Amino acid sequence: MEDAGVEVVLATSTHNVRYLLGGYRFFFFEHFNAIGVSVYLPCLGYQRGHPENAFYIGNPMETRSLELEPLWVGRLDTSSWTAAGTARAAADFLRRLRLERATIAIERSFMPDEALTVLEQELPGASFVEALPLLSELRAIKRPDELALLRIVADGIVSAMMEVIGSATAGVTTRAVAERLRIEETRRGLVSEYCLVAAGPSSHRAPSEAPWLAGRALSLDSGASLRGYVGDLARMGCMGTPTARMEELLAQVDAVQQAGRSEVRPGRTGQEVYAAALAVQGECPDGPNMSFVAHGMGLVSHEAPYLTDTRTVPYPAVHRHRPFEPGMVLSVETELVDSVVGYVKLEDTVVVTEDGAEAYGDAGRGWNAVPLE
Amino acid sequence: MEDAGVEVVLATSTHNVRYLLGGYRFFFFEHFNAIGVSVYLPCLGYQRGHPENAFYIGNPMETRSLELEPLWVGRLDTSSWTAAGTARAAADFLRRLRLERATIAIERSFMPDEALTVLEQELPGASFVEALPLLSELRAIKRPDELALLRIVADGIVSAMMEVIGSATAGVTTRAVAERLRIEETRRGLVSEYCLVAAGPSSHRAPSEAPWLAGRALSLDSGASLRGYVGDLARMGCMGTPTARMEELLAQVDAVQQAGRSEVRPGRTGQEVYAAALAVQGECPDGPNMSFVAHGMGLVSHEAPYLTDTRTVPYPAVHRHRPFEPGMVLSVETELVDSVVGYVKLEDTVVVTEDGAEAYGDAGRGWNAVPLE
Repeated sequence: MEDAGVEVVLATSTHNVRYLLGGYRFFFFEHFNAIGVSVYLPCLGYQRGHPENAFYIGNPMETRSLELEPLWVGRLDTSSWTAAGTARAAADFLRRLRLERATIAIERSFMPDEALTVLEQELPGASFVEALPLLSELRAIKRPDELALLRIVADGIVSAMMEVIGSATAGVTTRAVAERLRIEETRRGLVSEYCLVAAGPSSHRAPSEAPWLAGRALSLDSGASLRGYVGDLARMGCMGTPTARMEELLAQVDAVQQAGRSEVRPGRTGQEVYAAALAVQGECPDGPNMSFVAHGMGLVSHEAPYLTDTRTVPYPAVHRHRPFEPGMVLSVETELVDSVVGYVKLEDTVVVTEDGAEAYGDAGRGWNAVPLE
Repeated sequence: MEDAGVEVVLATSTHNVRYLLGGYRFFFFEHFNAIGVSVYLPCLGYQRGHPENAFYIGNPMETRSLELEPLWVGRLDTSSWTAAGTARAAADFLRRLRLERATIAIERSFMPDEALTVLEQELPGASFVEALPLLSELRAIKRPDELALLRIVADGIVSAMMEVIGSATAGVTTRAVAERLRIEETRRGLVSEYCLVAAGPSSHRAPSEAPWLAGRALSLDSGASLRGYVGDLARMGCMGTPTARMEELLAQVDAVQQAGRSEVRPGRTGQEVYAAALAVQGECPDGPNMSFVAHGMGLVSHEAPYLTDTRTVPYPAVHRHRPFEPGMVLSVETELVDSVVGYVKLEDTVVVTEDGAEAYGDAGRGWNAVPLE
């Protein structure tokens, strides 16, 4: 915060409020974010160097919930029903802390116009700057409790996928597969976020009435979360015994994956991960039909470390040349589209450790074959 | 729109984009709303009197999904990864439609500052006004397809509650009850939103380690949704046979409920619903410990019709004196806190029909007793 000249951070995104509160989000608004005539807008205020002055603004419904699950934050105001109400409460806290002329970092893409308008009216002497670089950087290295959640999520997603593939029968639609995965992830205590699913030879990945027929491949790519921490993995199934061609394609995908993964350790960089993976892709017979991506993940499915200027991150790739550090978490993914087999993809969660890396949920990476009757 | 002097609506909230697109939201962002360095910000633009000019702005990942599930909207731009990108695309559409000087209605509490800043820069001649009254009013009367979804959700929530209560054993924690309900709602095809749960004599409703013991009451109040349409109902359970006092308390709650519900029909008003319920509450021996609320519901858990200026709706109660019309949907709720029994609550979904009203999910309104072994 000092480097950025920021005196106060006002976090208002779901992920950053959650992060700064050690995992808390009022459970009533786990999914939806509208109530009455406004967005639900919780806010965490943090003054540089003064954790004792931190404040949290929430909704009246969470007052009693916070008695059962107290926050580390000492100052609470749970009176806000609207974005404007949250902004007025934040301005009150800042005035009491004599910070009405401070440089305040806000999340411009997660700060409603209604709220900022009120803040600017109430604090005409304050300056507002973007909080994104600061908060992204802060979240790039995960604490042990965050890693523990990410491990549970990755294991749960893969376990749910194995259950769904193993119990499928020929002809099931991709919509039914996605719905079954949603239930299995939920049964494992997770919040199921999405399921991209393609039944070969199609490479369409939106759940639909397309059937998974005997002899065909199935690509599952699913996100689920636990207390906001996201897992994102992809595995393959085959209805019956995979063909030699299927084996060959998945082996190529895996070769690219392993090349990328082998560079994930302390001291290596995003550029080295990409260079290693792309070198192997270049040697693969089906390389021209493949694509490789590695991105940070945690409370947001694509977050710091930012390894490349991809389309998903129109933002400086600050970690392209900066060495990895223990606690960074990457999602490493290689996909291939074949006109006969369809969509072939592996996606793995790889965590930088003190002396190398560890993959979470690393089971089921080959063809998961369903015996035909 | 004409009355409000509005030439264009730019909807950016999850619920209003979904409403105007007939139920569509890209499934990848069903729950979380952040990707890369920004919020996911889809936008639906609608020019007054020109449905053929409507446009939709989405994310590149949904391009192929929209091929499988085409929208009614003729103009698409799925190139936006950021709030600013969405705003630039909207400005492009509006310039092409020669609406760069139009009066544009936006949702100020659902429009990020980053997006509005770009819109104001790109369209310096435009005027921006609040879209809330217009869009709230539009959603107040539900179409048959919306009612069908609300019926499925209400039935599913109550069915899941009956399953969870019926299979519980003495000593189960309220956290385990809430988790079980989440799974049962998911198994019924719903998105489980929240579960407020209190085991008597406590009236704390956040899931916790508090046990549901033999002889005690359980209050379940849960929200779940289907394609964004929310159900919100409350039912009671008893571990063993309810006492005479429990029967008496629930009978009082039900009497207030029925009084309020009896006024829900075409031509009656919000004021009459409240007057009838409060009159019965005033006659109840435990009336002083009760509270009654009725509110509109649909894509938002508290929406139009707005019957009172409650804390949840700091907005004119435009439907207090305006007669109900067929297709309006109310959630009617009465709660009572008793120092011995705990929390006693019923909440029902009541729909205004052509000749009266119909309640969705109207089962299980008495004590649902769990036989003790």
